[in-house]
Parts: sequence; structure tokens; C-alpha cells
Amino acid sequence: MPVIPIKTHRELLDSRQPGCGMPGELFGRQDVFETDMDVFFHKLWILVAVTADVPEPGDVYAIDIGKASILIVRDDDENVRAYRNICRHRGSRLMKNAGKASVGMLVCPYHQWTYDLDGSLRHTSHMGKEFDANCRSLIPVHIKVVGAHIFVCLADEAPEDFSKLETAMTPRFAPHDMQRTKIAYEMEIIENGNWKLVMENNRECYHCGATHPELTQSFLAHDFGFCPDGQSEAALHDYEQYLAHNATRKEEWEKDGYLCELFESLDESVETNFRSQRLVIAGAGESQTMDTKVASTKLLGNLQRRDLGDVHMWGHHSWTHVMSDHAVVATAIPIAPDKTRVRTVWLVHEDAIEGVDYDLQTLTEVWVATTQQDAELVGNTHSGTQDPGYVPGPFSQYTEGELEQFARWYDARLKAHGV
Amino acid sequence: MPVIPIKTHRELLDSRQPGCGMPGELFGRQDVFETDMDVFFHKLWILVAVTADVPEPGDVYAIDIGKASILIVRDDDENVRAYRNICRHRGSRLMKNAGKASVGMLVCPYHQWTYDLDGSLRHTSHMGKEFDANCRSLIPVHIKVVGAHIFVCLADEAPEDFSKLETAMTPRFAPHDMQRTKIAYEMEIIENGNWKLVMENNRECYHCGATHPELTQSFLAHDFGFCPDGQSEAALHDYEQYLAHNATRKEEWEKDGYLCELFESLDESVETNFRSQRLVIAGAGESQTMDTKVASTKLLGNLQRRDLGDVHMWGHHSWTHVMSDHAVVATAIPIAPDKTRVRTVWLVHEDAIEGVDYDLQTLTEVWVATTQQDAELVGNTHSGTQDPGYVPGPFSQYTEGELEQFARWYDARLKAHGV
Amino acid sequence: MPVIPIKTHRELLDSRQPGCGMPGELFGRQDVFETDMDVFFHKLWILVAVTADVPEPGDVYAIDIGKASILIVRDDDENVRAYRNICRHRGSRLMKNAGKASVGMLVCPYHQWTYDLDGSLRHTSHMGKEFDANCRSLIPVHIKVVGAHIFVCLADEAPEDFSKLETAMTPRFAPHDMQRTKIAYEMEIIENGNWKLVMENNRECYHCGATHPELTQSFLAHDFGFCPDGQSEAALHDYEQYLAHNATRKEEWEKDGYLCELFESLDESVETNFRSQRLVIAGAGESQTMDTKVASTKLLGNLQRRDLGDVHMWGHHSWTHVMSDHAVVATAIPIAPDKTRVRTVWLVHEDAIEGVDYDLQTLTEVWVATTQQDAELVGNTHSGTQDPGYVPGPFSQYTEGELEQFARWYDARLKAHGV
Repeated sequence: MPVIPIKTHRELLDSRQPGCGMPGELFGRQDVFETDMDVFFHKLWILVAVTADVPEPGDVYAIDIGKASILIVRDDDENVRAYRNICRHRGSRLMKNAGKASVGMLVCPYHQWTYDLDGSLRHTSHMGKEFDANCRSLIPVHIKVVGAHIFVCLADEAPEDFSKLETAMTPRFAPHDMQRTKIAYEMEIIENGNWKLVMENNRECYHCGATHPELTQSFLAHDFGFCPDGQSEAALHDYEQYLAHNATRKEEWEKDGYLCELFESLDESVETNFRSQRLVIAGAGESQTMDTKVASTKLLGNLQRRDLGDVHMWGHHSWTHVMSDHAVVATAIPIAPDKTRVRTVWLVHEDAIEGVDYDLQTLTEVWVATTQQDAELVGNTHSGTQDPGYVPGPFSQYTEGELEQFARWYDARLKAHGV
Repeated sequence: MPVIPIKTHRELLDSRQPGCGMPGELFGRQDVFETDMDVFFHKLWILVAVTADVPEPGDVYAIDIGKASILIVRDDDENVRAYRNICRHRGSRLMKNAGKASVGMLVCPYHQWTYDLDGSLRHTSHMGKEFDANCRSLIPVHIKVVGAHIFVCLADEAPEDFSKLETAMTPRFAPHDMQRTKIAYEMEIIENGNWKLVMENNRECYHCGATHPELTQSFLAHDFGFCPDGQSEAALHDYEQYLAHNATRKEEWEKDGYLCELFESLDESVETNFRSQRLVIAGAGESQTMDTKVASTKLLGNLQRRDLGDVHMWGHHSWTHVMSDHAVVATAIPIAPDKTRVRTVWLVHEDAIEGVDYDLQTLTEVWVATTQQDAELVGNTHSGTQDPGYVPGPFSQYTEGELEQFARWYDARLKAHGV
Repeated sequence: MPVIPIKTHRELLDSRQPGCGMPGELFGRQDVFETDMDVFFHKLWILVAVTADVPEPGDVYAIDIGKASILIVRDDDENVRAYRNICRHRGSRLMKNAGKASVGMLVCPYHQWTYDLDGSLRHTSHMGKEFDANCRSLIPVHIKVVGAHIFVCLADEAPEDFSKLETAMTPRFAPHDMQRTKIAYEMEIIENGNWKLVMENNRECYHCGATHPELTQSFLAHDFGFCPDGQSEAALHDYEQYLAHNATRKEEWEKDGYLCELFESLDESVETNFRSQRLVIAGAGESQTMDTKVASTKLLGNLQRRDLGDVHMWGHHSWTHVMSDHAVVATAIPIAPDKTRVRTVWLVHEDAIEGVDYDLQTLTEVWVATTQQDAELVGNTHSGTQDPGYVPGPFSQYTEGELEQFARWYDARLKAHGV
């Protein structure tokens, strides 16, 4: 007789109280992790790179997604392609490690099977005349580029509703001309928590006031929820002023052609989970920096205005902030139930020069600090949720509504895949 | 068809030959480990700290028990309390890491939910007027203090027979006034063996003669078993002298009010497994030191006599030695099938001054060395028991009878919990 | 409903396409690994040491085979014996760590149970007169010495067809007098791949040309397969010359009494998998060195000729090259699905003197480099086979036929053990 009966994944999902956090086993169990990898990272569209990762023909970027590895390749025709990083012979990696290289062709380090950048097998030795190289091209991976964002889907059939993201985001990114950017800095850390806790942390700012002194220079706390109960007259007045100020700015932006309004694709019916909005920046209103002014005086694209706020885009495992002068793109890729790799990339105009147009410290200090702070919060919460005494508590309906929505979408996606 | 059929936990228990060691899978299997954690560390009373760990109001000591973490807190009313180290909101740890702190209130580092030292939730933001803070107090943990020993029980209903330990040990510890002590030194090591091997090692001294040169200065080998078969006349005579000497000392102590006689609660019916006895110390007879004299001239409590032997107390995962001048308290907490954290604390009179009343090296060298020696023996034995060729061998009925008793109690407790 | 249905070990085996690599789960799954350990390392004869590991009476060599540990002991009668490294009392290791020692008797470090080198239990204390030491001898392990090679079998009944290896190899090793050798150097590395990938790598040299610049100094590429399709006239002519040259050398060697012809015991019916052949060495034709000349001028045994080629012997987890001046013996022992310990030993004449008869760098540089190169190839391939996108590709029928044979033998052995 088992002392601790084991719940199925479905029973765990069903045991969540509406309005409360997920049961701890959804964050910690190996079987749940493997299903998560399969459903959320191998069946849906995921954001894996930016175009500036492979700027030139022959550039290759190898990325690990769980036990899978993919190659993002800039072909000679300037198109970006994606393949499984697996030789069709004995399965060797073509690129040994995650990271970047520039190549003429893709040559397997084991027996030198040689592939063109379009994936076709050009050369092998010792295989005999019966061997048909046409059946042994590299395995292609679905790929879509929106702005600077490179999305892939590892499934045979990729979700069709990605078209909504393309339609919604293309005009929002357009004025920032995202493909004319370069990577000014990148940072990779391993957070000691489940990927869903990383995303829950990203989707609420209830925690920001006390934990993110750098980020809250440029964030408007009211953007992330406000509970009027028990507030002073002054506080309520402030909130009304915030609403009025926001409305004014957005009206003005829209008039100049900068899309602002909230776009959400978050409910239980969608496969591609995302949200976008142009948020007002606090203080000088220009950028997510300590002084809220631009970090790069060479603005993105051909922009002239510095006060364009923050074009925010969430995915189910990523977050992006695009301002007039730079963009921050972060992705969270699970590596174990309690380990998530978070990569953050800072993009500036491709012609911006470090030390002239921007100072690297000024550009990066807010999100470097914020990411490290979040990593600590996530690790700490993961640990607590794995405690046998953990009982999921209530979300704040004012500041954590998005977490409830994420939990519902997560459940629905699993149900759609038979869990 | 499986090559290696897997036995159930119960089948493993039943496969033990009476008088022989446990089958190796009881030490190495992950599922057995998890059940052990549940039954022996989350359902029974366990020793986790001493009162000197939290000497002042506001002192907090966070302790990991497997994936659980508990907070031992000294409240403003001087009482010691225990809670789960879990915020009632999103599950974050209140104290991030195991260890000690001094606080005014317990503030969650995530969203600043704030608890009084009595566990009640005093403050939250953004939760709205419907929110009932009274339902969100910290989850309390059963706690008992006996002498300096802080026991907790993580179960909903704590075993009632703990009262026997309280009754037996309170008068034994009383002359040593254990709460008027301070921690002179503490040591934590990870032993590379199953917790039951750590305890088997602790419950026999058959191994002491050849492996513990420091400890055997003060131990009387005969205390730990003696096989008369094949012994010389001289050896048999020595043994009779030992018995006579022991009887004399104990009679004398009892006359002066120091309880001596053996108290055992070890059989298959008990939930709280412990044993106590006042043992005679060898040589000068004072303390477990290299020269068998006291290490601290400031005796415990108001004691005047130095030759009070060793008040020994076993628990199912702990051991304690209380002498006239100092006490050594050790606890073994499993962290994996093959990893056990052993913490040892040396207590002296709260007014004793290092360098004046005691020398730290003299105080600690015996048990520091003994603990390291035992760690090596345990690791070595764990490895051997995991060998597919391992066949449990026979206990010595003269020196390892307590191991047979421990194996029976272990089996009975599991049976009582449905295994 | 499980998202990813789990195949049985048998289903995985049956799912292999003839002529193609094994499915990735056979390399990565923990349950497959455990069955592999049981069938291929605990039931078959395995090569674990050379006689020079225990040159003198009282020499002991402890070796880990998975969770098992064995002792190779040179007894006082000069015979080599093997025992489980487990005390018959509580299971402690007799030798704490893998490695070598010289002893008079085998004394358990825990309670000093003491065994003679012939395994009998000579002394215990405290066990009483009823105790029968005769039932508590060390557990013996089957052992066979062929040349310098020490094979053991951990099963109760050892495969009988090992006699074929004895019969075939004894006369091949004889002129090299392998027991009159000493260890000039040894190297141990952990390869990050499954043991079967280590062996597949060893059984083909399709990869050698581009990855082993040192080894290919002395190897004849044609030895390891040649596809005539599409080759130039010149290339085909070269190949004919190679065949003629080979035939001439072998005829000459055979005439002088050096056995040459290929001996194979590799098919699905055999338990003891091995292959031997005397291969021609390139260049000067003497030894596997950078300049293809002997590394030790003190030849093995009483040999006078330096150009005796390479007596090659494969086992299912080992490879050996014996030349006129030295031998290289390598064994691969799995330690996890993705970790294999490879030990390589370089043997020279027991009277050869470093710096006089041989230079250590010259002796070892080829196989040190080759082993490191292979480790990288194996790790790289293991990673690729664990990718969910991996599809096993076709073996070259010209250069990888031995891999197909290994896959069939592997399958047959598992079937014979009920998988």
C-alpha cells in the first residue's frame, strides 16, 4: 500500500482552487516537466533568437531546447532557416555546443557528412551508389520572423493562430525597424525554479515595489494593478491622475501612428499566448534606465522621438520591451523541473557605437539587476512550493489576475493535448 | 519481462533474516527514502534544535527537514514556537536559507506579507476588503522543549507517547540545567550513507576500539557489549570488576539524587524511540575529553561535582551526551537515500567564557574526530550494501543487539503506517 | 492519458531498422542502462585488469563495476584471485576506494573481520562460539587469465564459450610473453556517452581519417573498409596494392609462427564476443607511434623482430593492441546511461627502463590523443541521439558492418536473458 498516493497530472490540474496558485507538484515533478517540455516547448511556437544572432550568410546559432538542439542558419539568400542539430547518419551534433559559428557548409565532425546551408546533403564518403542523399537532408524546423524575433515550432504541424501574433506585432514593431539592430549585450542565467514560476513572476508586478529598485524608476506601479480598498483620498486621487495621464499619452501616440492599445491572446482557446501594449514610462518617459532617459542617442530605425514608451510583448515563455532607443528580449527555456535558463538580449541600432552613442552600463544595469533579483525570488518560491506543507494561497485579484489567466491557459493547453 | 523484479517495500522488510542486517535496497532506494522521510521525519517527533539556537526574543532558526523547512522562533513572551517556513500567499520561503536571523516580524521577501512572531498575518497590500487574514496565519508545527532539546512534529496529530520521554528525561536533565547553556561550537557534515546506517553506527560500539582512538579514552568498552566465549581468565575477571565498579558508582549517584538506571522505549509498540542511562566515564571519570577531565571548569547549572558520568539519550535520529561540564547534542537528518546531514552542537554553561573557563579544542576534539571517523565508516558501508553482491550478515548478539531492535522497530513503524 | 507512451526494452530493440543505428532510448534510458549492466557486465566475462596490476603477492586492486566492487588479489601462491569487495558482516567495503594496495591479510575497516588472501575468514571478535566462520568466506568471483588479461565473471555460472577466447588468444599472445610486462602508464577518463556508443566508435574507423591525425600515422585506412563506387582508377589500384601487400606480410609472419588470420566470435549465438587479427602497421611497420617505429627498444618477451604488426583483440567492452615493443589495453565500464569510464594501460617489457629503453611521451602520445578525440566524438553523438528529433541513420555497409553485427549480438544477448 503506497504511503503517498501519486496524483495524475490531470488530477493535479483539477485540484487547483480557482484564484489560487498551482499545486506544488506541477512545479516539481519530473513527469510534469517532461509533459510541459513536450506540450509548451515542442508543440507550440517558441521564441528562440533574434535576427541579430545570425547577421551574415553562413552564421549559425545552435540552441538547446531541453534535449533537442536546433540550428538557426542565415542562408546565402539572406533567409533565416532552422534545422535539427543532428546528422542524418549516426546522430552526431553538427555543432557540438550551444553557441555561434560562421561556416561555409555544415560539416558533421564525426564522419564529415556535409550539408549545404539549405539543409541538403551534398557529400558523403563510403556510402555506395545505392545511397540516396535526397532522403537525408537536415530535418527542417518551422520558423517565423516577426520584427527581430525568431520563432520556431518543433511540431510537425505548427499552430495556425500564430498569424494573430504576426498581424498584431508587425505594425507595432515596424517604426522601431527591429531587424536593423545589433546585440549590444547578452546575459544568460540559470534560475533555480520551474519555468512556470519564472513566468508567474514576470506576469505580475505586485512584487516590484519592494524588490526592484532599479526597474521601478521607469515603471508606473499603477500599470500593474491597484486595490482601492482602504486607500487614502490622496492615493485615490493619484490613481485617477495616472489614468488621465495614460489616456492622454496614448491618444497622442495613436495620432502619430504608434499603436498603443492592449492586444491580448491569453484565453483558454488560444495556442499562441501573447499580450502587447505600449506602456507609458515614468519620469522623463524615454527608456527603462535609471534616469528614465534614453541609453542610446542613436534611436532605433529612423525614429526622432525619444518618448515612445515601452512596447511590451509577452509570450508564454518570453518577454520583450521595445523603447525608442533599445529593446530588451528575454526567453525562458526549462532545463529541469527546478532549473530554467533565462537569456536576455539588449538590442540597439545596428549603427550605434558603444562609448559614443551609448554607455553599456547605463544600457544594461536595470534589467541585469532586475533579472538577478527575480532569479532569487523565483528560487525562493520554488523551494517553498516543494515543501510538503505548502498550500497554494490566493492571488490578489487586483495585481495577480494574469496569473489566474496563465493557470487556466496552461490547463487548457494540456487538456487539448490529452492530459 | 523485467530482468530484475522489483520488490515492494514490505517484501524487502519481510526478507530480512532475524539477527541480520537489512537488505541493501532499504538503504538505497528512492521510494524507500521517501517513505522513510514521511514516516520517521514527518510523522514522529524529531529533535531539531536546542534552546540556545534561539536565545533571545525575535531569534529565528530555519531548518530543512527534507523538502520541508521549519522556523523555530523565540516569541516576545520568551516561548519557543515553530512554523512552516512558507508564506501563505504564493509559497515563498520567509527565510531564504537554512540558518539564523533576528527579526522584529516575519516579512515575506516576495510580496511583503508580514507576520507577527506568534504567526498571525498582520499586514498585506492589494488583497482587498474581502480578504480574511485570520485564515492565513503561518502554519504551526507541534513543538516540545525538554531540557535544552527542541522537538517538533510535522504531523497533524503528534504521537502521544512522547510524554514518556518528557517524564523520563526532565529529572535526568534537571541537575544540568540545560536551558542555561550556550552553543560553544557547532559542526555540520554530510555523511555519504543512508540515515539508518548512521543510526546503526551510533547504536553499537563494536567498531569503537579500532576506529575511535579519541572516544575510547573516556568510554568503557564493556558498556557496549562483551562476548565471554573464549576469553582468558584475566579478561573475565576484568569484566566482573567492571560490573562491580559500575554498580558502585551508580548506587552512589542515585543516593545523591542523580538518576542512573537504564530507561528504554525501543520496542515495536512505541512511536517515540529513545533510551537513556547515566554511563560511567573511564579514567578520571569526568568528561568525554582526551584526558577524561572536564573541558569547562564552569560546570553546568549549579553542579559542584565533576564526576557525574554521561547522561546518554538516543532518539531514532539523534544522540546526546550530557556531562557535568558540557553536553554534546547530535541530530541526523536525511537528505537523500545516500546522504545524511549530521549536526553536532557543543553546549557549555551560558556564563562560561572561552579561553577562561574552557579551551575550545579540548572541548570539541573528541566528538569532532569521532564524527569524521563515523562518517567514513558509514559511507564505506553504504557503498557495500548497494553492491549487487551484498548479502546481509549476522549481528553480534553481544555487541549489536540494539541494531536488531532498531530493525524491528523500523519495520513495526512502517507497518503501522500501512507499509 | 500519457502524452509520450513508453516503449518496452524489447519494443525498442525490435524498432531498429536493419542496417541502421539503434534508437536513442537504448542509449539514454535508465532502465535500459540497468539491464545492460546486469546482462553485459554482471553475466558475461569482462576484462577488468592486467596481471601487472597485481605484480606481487599481497597486491590488491579494487575495481568498480557499476555498483559492484571487486578485489583482484595476488595470493601468496602467486595465483590471481577475485572476490566481492564486501565484508560478510555488515557489508562494509574491505578496500574503501577503487585503486591499489599491498596487504598481508584483508581486514575490514569497520569491525576488523580479517580474511586470508584465499578469502577465508580467519578472525572475528565478539561473535560467540556458535558462529561458523566457514560460512563467511569472501564471495569468490570467476576469474581467467589469458596473456596479461584478467577477465572476471560476476554471474553464478560463467559462460562456457570463453574457452574459445582462451584457445584463440593464448598462442597469439604467447610470443609477446604478456605476463612479463609492467605498466608504463595508465589513463582513465569519463566519456559523456553510453557504453554502446563508445564501442560503436571503437569498431569502425570510418571516422579516423578526419579525426585521428596521430593514429592514422600507423593505421592502414583500407583495413577499416573501402567503398569502390565512384573511385578513380588510381584509388582502385592503390586498394589492390594494399591487398597484395597485406597478403605478403601475413604469409611471411605465419611462416615464422606468428598467427595472423582473422578470428571472429561475433555472431548472435555467442556469449563471449571477441575478434582478433594481426594487422599490418603503416610506414616503418613497427608500432602505433607517430613515426611508426618501436617506442621501446626492449621488445616484449624474447622478440627480436620489430615489424610484427598489431595483434588486435576486441571484447564487447574492451580493445587491445599488442605490438612487438608494447601493448595498449583499454576497457570501457559504464557508470551511467551517459557516462562511461575508459581506462587505458600501456604495457612494456618488465625490464624496460623509462628514459633508457623508452620515452614515455613517444610511447603514449598516439593513444592518449586518440582516446581524447574519441571521447569528444562519443559525447557529441550521445547528445544527438538523445534529441527527440533523432532518427537513426544508415550504417555504411563498407565501413560500419561491424556495428550492424554488434547491434544484432546485443539484441540476441538480451533476448537470451528474457528481454
